[in-house]
Amino acid sequence: MKIEQLGRHILAEFYNCDKDILNDHKLIEKYMNEAAIEANATIVKSVFHMFNPWGVSGVVVIQESHLTIHTWPEYGYAAVDLFTCGDDVDPWVAFKYLKEKLEADKTETLEVPRGLVDKIKHFSDEELTDVKFKPDAKDE
Amino acid sequence: MKIEQLGRHILAEFYNCDKDILNDHKLIEKYMNEAAIEANATIVKSVFHMFNPWGVSGVVVIQESHLTIHTWPEYGYAAVDLFTCGDDVDPWVAFKYLKEKLEADKTETLEVPRGLVDKIKHFSDEELTDVKFKPDAKDE
Repeated sequence: MKIEQLGRHILAEFYNCDKDILNDHKLIEKYMNEAAIEANATIVKSVFHMFNPWGVSGVVVIQESHLTIHTWPEYGYAAVDLFTCGDDVDPWVAFKYLKEKLEADKTETLEVPRGLVDKIKHFSDEELTDVKFKPDAKDE
Repeated sequence: MKIEQLGRHILAEFYNCDKDILNDHKLIEKYMNEAAIEANATIVKSVFHMFNPWGVSGVVVIQESHLTIHTWPEYGYAAVDLFTCGDDVDPWVAFKYLKEKLEADKTETLEVPRGLVDKIKHFSDEELTDVKFKPDAKDE
Protein backbone atom coordinates (compact mmCIF):
# COMPACT_ATOMS: atom_id res chain seq x y z
CA MET A 1 0.00 0.00 0.00
CA LYS A 2 1.04 3.58 -0.55
CA ILE A 3 0.31 6.24 2.01
CA GLU A 4 0.35 9.86 0.94
CA GLN A 5 2.07 12.24 3.31
CA LEU A 6 3.65 15.66 3.00
CA GLY A 7 6.82 14.92 4.90
CA ARG A 8 9.07 12.39 6.57
CA HIS A 9 10.62 13.10 9.92
CA ILE A 10 13.47 11.05 11.30
CA LEU A 11 14.26 11.49 14.99
CA ALA A 12 17.77 10.16 15.51
CA GLU A 13 19.74 9.54 18.68
CA PHE A 14 23.50 9.44 18.13
CA TYR A 15 25.43 7.73 20.91
CA ASN A 16 29.12 7.59 21.71
CA CYS A 17 30.16 10.07 19.04
CA ASP A 18 33.51 11.79 18.83
CA LYS A 19 33.41 14.31 21.67
CA ASP A 20 35.69 16.86 20.03
CA ILE A 21 33.58 16.92 16.90
CA LEU A 22 30.40 17.38 18.96
CA ASN A 23 31.93 20.42 20.62
CA ASP A 24 33.14 22.10 17.44
CA HIS A 25 30.31 24.29 16.28
CA LYS A 26 31.97 25.26 13.01
CA LEU A 27 32.43 21.62 12.13
CA ILE A 28 28.91 20.68 13.21
CA GLU A 29 27.50 23.48 11.08
CA LYS A 30 29.57 22.35 8.12
CA TYR A 31 28.45 18.73 8.48
CA MET A 32 24.80 19.65 8.91
CA ASN A 33 24.88 21.82 5.79
CA GLU A 34 26.67 19.10 3.87
CA ALA A 35 24.09 16.58 5.07
CA ALA A 36 21.34 18.79 3.68
CA ILE A 37 23.08 19.04 0.32
CA GLU A 38 23.79 15.30 0.23
CA ALA A 39 20.08 14.67 0.80
CA ASN A 40 19.31 16.94 -2.16
CA ALA A 41 17.73 19.67 -0.06
CA THR A 42 17.87 23.39 -0.79
CA ILE A 43 19.28 25.38 2.11
CA VAL A 44 17.39 28.51 3.11
CA LYS A 45 19.28 29.45 6.26
CA SER A 46 21.65 27.92 8.75
CA VAL A 47 21.82 29.00 12.40
CA PHE A 48 24.28 27.50 14.87
CA HIS A 49 25.02 28.35 18.43
CA MET A 50 27.78 27.34 20.80
CA PHE A 51 26.91 26.95 24.43
CA ASN A 52 29.12 27.78 27.37
CA PRO A 53 30.84 25.68 28.60
CA TRP A 54 30.01 23.18 25.86
CA GLY A 55 27.50 21.86 23.39
CA VAL A 56 26.19 22.99 20.03
CA SER A 57 22.63 23.70 18.92
CA GLY A 58 21.86 24.27 15.30
CA VAL A 59 19.24 24.36 12.62
CA VAL A 60 19.41 24.20 8.87
CA VAL A 61 16.14 25.52 7.48
CA ILE A 62 15.65 23.96 4.07
CA GLN A 63 12.99 24.60 1.47
CA GLU A 64 11.80 21.11 2.27
CA SER A 65 11.54 21.68 6.08
CA HIS A 66 14.52 21.43 8.47
CA LEU A 67 17.47 19.60 9.96
CA THR A 68 18.39 20.23 13.61
CA ILE A 69 21.03 19.06 16.04
CA HIS A 70 21.73 19.43 19.74
CA THR A 71 24.96 18.00 21.09
CA TRP A 72 26.20 17.01 24.54
CA PRO A 73 29.93 16.52 23.90
CA GLU A 74 30.57 15.46 27.49
CA TYR A 75 28.33 12.43 26.99
CA GLY A 76 29.16 11.78 23.33
CA TYR A 77 25.46 12.22 22.58
CA ALA A 78 23.59 14.18 19.92
CA ALA A 79 19.86 14.53 19.22
CA VAL A 80 19.27 14.98 15.49
CA ASP A 81 16.07 15.71 13.57
CA LEU A 82 15.80 15.29 9.83
CA PHE A 83 12.46 16.53 8.55
CA THR A 84 12.04 16.66 4.79
CA CYS A 85 9.07 17.12 2.46
CA GLY A 86 8.55 15.95 -1.07
CA ASP A 87 9.94 13.10 -3.14
CA ASP A 88 13.17 14.75 -4.19
CA VAL A 89 14.85 14.76 -0.79
CA ASP A 90 15.88 11.69 1.18
CA PRO A 91 16.39 12.24 4.92
CA TRP A 92 18.09 8.85 5.24
CA VAL A 93 20.95 10.08 3.11
CA ALA A 94 21.45 12.93 5.58
CA PHE A 95 21.25 10.47 8.46
CA LYS A 96 23.89 8.19 7.00
CA TYR A 97 26.17 11.12 6.25
CA LEU A 98 25.96 12.49 9.79
CA LYS A 99 26.38 9.09 11.43
CA GLU A 100 29.69 8.78 9.64
CA LYS A 101 30.89 12.34 10.21
CA LEU A 102 30.02 12.41 13.92
CA GLU A 103 31.59 8.97 14.30
CA ALA A 104 28.57 7.62 16.15
CA ASP A 105 29.10 4.10 17.48
CA LYS A 106 25.42 3.52 17.96
CA THR A 107 22.31 5.18 16.59
CA GLU A 108 18.60 4.77 17.11
CA THR A 109 15.95 6.23 14.86
CA LEU A 110 12.23 6.76 14.68
CA GLU A 111 10.57 7.82 11.44
CA VAL A 112 7.31 9.69 11.88
CA PRO A 113 5.06 10.60 8.96
CA ARG A 114 4.13 14.29 8.96
CA GLY A 115 1.05 15.66 7.27
CA LEU A 116 -0.82 12.48 6.43
CA VAL A 117 -2.99 13.51 3.49
CA ASP A 118 -6.04 11.50 4.54
CA LYS A 119 -6.04 13.16 7.93
CA ILE A 120 -5.61 16.63 6.49
CA LYS A 121 -8.60 15.98 4.22
CA HIS A 122 -10.63 14.39 6.97
CA PHE A 123 -10.20 17.26 9.41
CA SER A 124 -10.55 20.06 6.86
CA ASP A 125 -13.79 22.03 6.82
CA GLU A 126 -13.65 22.32 3.05
CA GLU A 127 -13.21 19.67 0.41
CA LEU A 128 -9.56 19.31 -0.57
CA THR A 129 -8.68 17.46 -3.72
CA ASP A 130 -5.00 17.61 -4.53
CA VAL A 131 -3.02 17.71 -1.29
CA LYS A 132 0.71 17.64 -1.86
CA PHE A 133 4.02 19.21 -1.04
CA LYS A 134 4.66 22.04 -3.45
CA PRO A 135 7.45 20.77 -5.69
CA ASP A 136 7.43 24.07 -7.54
CA ALA A 137 7.77 26.17 -4.39
CA LYS A 138 10.32 28.85 -5.03
CA ASP A 139 12.29 30.87 -2.56
CA GLU A 140 10.93 34.40 -2.41
CA MET B 1 8.61 5.12 38.03
CA LYS B 2 10.76 8.04 36.97
CA ILE B 3 12.76 7.96 33.78
CA GLU B 4 15.67 10.34 33.39
CA GLN B 5 15.94 12.00 30.02
CA LEU B 6 17.60 15.15 28.71
CA GLY B 7 14.68 16.43 26.70
CA ARG B 8 11.04 16.15 25.72
CA HIS B 9 9.99 16.42 22.12
CA ILE B 10 6.37 16.95 21.13
CA LEU B 11 5.54 16.39 17.47
CA ALA B 12 2.22 18.11 16.82
CA GLU B 13 -0.05 18.08 13.82
CA PHE B 14 -2.40 21.07 13.66
CA TYR B 15 -5.43 20.55 11.42
CA ASN B 16 -8.01 22.96 10.07
CA CYS B 17 -6.29 26.08 11.37
CA ASP B 18 -7.07 29.61 10.28
CA LYS B 19 -5.63 29.83 6.77
CA ASP B 20 -4.84 33.54 6.88
CA ILE B 21 -2.89 33.15 10.09
CA LEU B 22 -0.91 30.22 8.65
CA ASN B 23 0.11 32.38 5.70
CA ASP B 24 1.22 35.40 7.73
CA HIS B 25 4.86 34.88 8.49
CA LYS B 26 5.15 37.89 10.77
CA LEU B 27 2.27 36.62 12.87
CA ILE B 28 3.58 33.04 12.90
CA GLU B 29 6.98 34.29 14.02
CA LYS B 30 5.36 36.38 16.76
CA TYR B 31 3.27 33.44 18.00
CA MET B 32 6.19 31.02 17.94
CA ASN B 33 8.36 33.41 19.93
CA GLU B 34 5.54 34.05 22.37
CA ALA B 35 5.02 30.29 22.72
CA ALA B 36 8.69 29.92 23.66
CA ILE B 37 8.40 32.64 26.28
CA GLU B 38 5.15 31.22 27.66
CA ALA B 39 6.91 27.85 28.05
CA ASN B 40 9.66 29.61 30.04
CA ALA B 41 12.31 29.09 27.38
CA THR B 42 15.18 31.47 26.62
CA ILE B 43 15.25 32.50 22.97
CA VAL B 44 18.64 32.36 21.23
CA LYS B 45 17.55 33.12 17.67
CA SER B 46 14.43 33.14 15.56
CA VAL B 47 14.49 32.48 11.80
CA PHE B 48 11.35 32.60 9.68
CA HIS B 49 10.87 32.24 5.98
CA MET B 50 7.91 32.90 3.70
CA PHE B 51 7.51 30.67 0.70
CA ASN B 52 6.20 31.64 -2.70
CA PRO B 53 3.31 31.35 -3.33
CA TRP B 54 2.43 30.43 0.26
CA GLY B 55 3.46 28.78 3.48
CA VAL B 56 5.77 29.65 6.33
CA SER B 57 8.75 27.77 7.75
CA GLY B 58 10.31 28.86 10.95
CA VAL B 59 12.55 27.94 13.82
CA VAL B 60 13.03 29.40 17.25
CA VAL B 61 16.34 28.18 18.63
CA ILE B 62 16.09 28.26 22.41
CA GLN B 63 18.75 27.58 25.03
CA GLU B 64 16.71 24.49 25.84
CA SER B 65 16.59 23.17 22.20
CA HIS B 66 14.07 24.39 19.58
CA LEU B 67 10.57 25.07 18.37
CA THR B 68 9.79 24.72 14.66
CA ILE B 69 6.78 25.16 12.40
CA HIS B 70 5.94 24.48 8.76
CA THR B 71 2.58 25.64 7.47
CA TRP B 72 0.41 24.74 4.49
CA PRO B 73 -2.19 27.52 4.58
CA GLU B 74 -4.06 26.10 1.58
CA TYR B 75 -4.83 22.96 3.61
CA GLY B 76 -5.17 24.62 7.00
CA TYR B 77 -2.37 22.36 8.20
CA ALA B 78 0.78 22.99 10.23
CA ALA B 79 3.52 20.63 11.43
CA VAL B 80 4.91 21.84 14.75
CA ASP B 81 7.84 20.55 16.82
CA LEU B 82 8.40 21.54 20.42
CA PHE B 83 11.67 20.17 21.73
CA THR B 84 12.73 21.33 25.17
CA CYS B 85 15.36 20.22 27.66
CA GLY B 86 15.47 20.53 31.39
CA ASP B 87 12.83 20.85 34.08
CA ASP B 88 12.24 24.56 33.83
CA VAL B 89 10.55 24.56 30.43
CA ASP B 90 7.22 22.95 29.61
CA PRO B 91 6.64 22.21 25.91
CA TRP B 92 2.94 21.54 26.57
CA VAL B 93 2.46 25.17 27.53
CA ALA B 94 3.84 26.15 24.11
CA PHE B 95 1.56 23.58 22.47
CA LYS B 96 -1.55 24.91 24.16
CA TYR B 97 -0.62 28.48 23.31
CA LEU B 98 -0.11 27.72 19.62
CA LYS B 99 -3.25 25.60 19.33
CA GLU B 100 -5.24 28.59 20.47
CA LYS B 101 -3.38 31.19 18.38
CA LEU B 102 -3.49 29.19 15.14
CA GLU B 103 -7.14 28.37 15.80
CA ALA B 104 -6.60 24.67 15.20
CA ASP B 105 -9.84 22.68 15.23
CA LYS B 106 -8.05 19.41 15.69
CA THR B 107 -4.60 18.48 16.89
CA GLU B 108 -2.66 15.26 17.26
CA THR B 109 0.50 14.90 19.25
CA LEU B 110 3.29 12.46 19.91
CA GLU B 111 5.73 12.97 22.76
CA VAL B 112 9.11 11.35 22.25
CA PRO B 113 11.76 11.24 24.97
CA ARG B 114 15.13 12.53 23.76
CA GLY B 115 18.41 11.57 25.32
CA LEU B 116 17.35 8.77 27.66
CA VAL B 117 20.04 8.80 30.32
CA ASP B 118 20.25 5.03 30.71
CA LYS B 119 20.87 4.63 27.00
CA ILE B 120 23.50 7.37 26.92
CA LYS B 121 25.30 5.60 29.77
CA HIS B 122 24.86 2.18 28.25
CA PHE B 123 26.31 3.12 24.87
CA SER B 124 29.12 5.32 26.19
CA ASP B 125 32.65 3.95 26.10
CA GLU B 126 33.48 5.63 29.37
CA GLU B 127 31.68 5.54 32.68
CA LEU B 128 29.31 8.48 33.02
CA THR B 129 27.97 9.35 36.42
CA ASP B 130 25.91 12.50 36.43
CA VAL B 131 24.13 12.82 33.07
CA LYS B 132 21.84 15.82 32.94
CA PHE B 133 20.78 18.85 30.96
CA LYS B 134 22.99 21.73 31.95
CA PRO B 135 20.71 23.99 33.96
CA ASP B 136 23.55 26.46 34.36
CA ALA B 137 24.27 26.65 30.61
CA LYS B 138 24.90 30.25 29.72
CA ASP B 139 24.72 31.95 26.38
CA GLU B 140 28.18 32.81 25.14
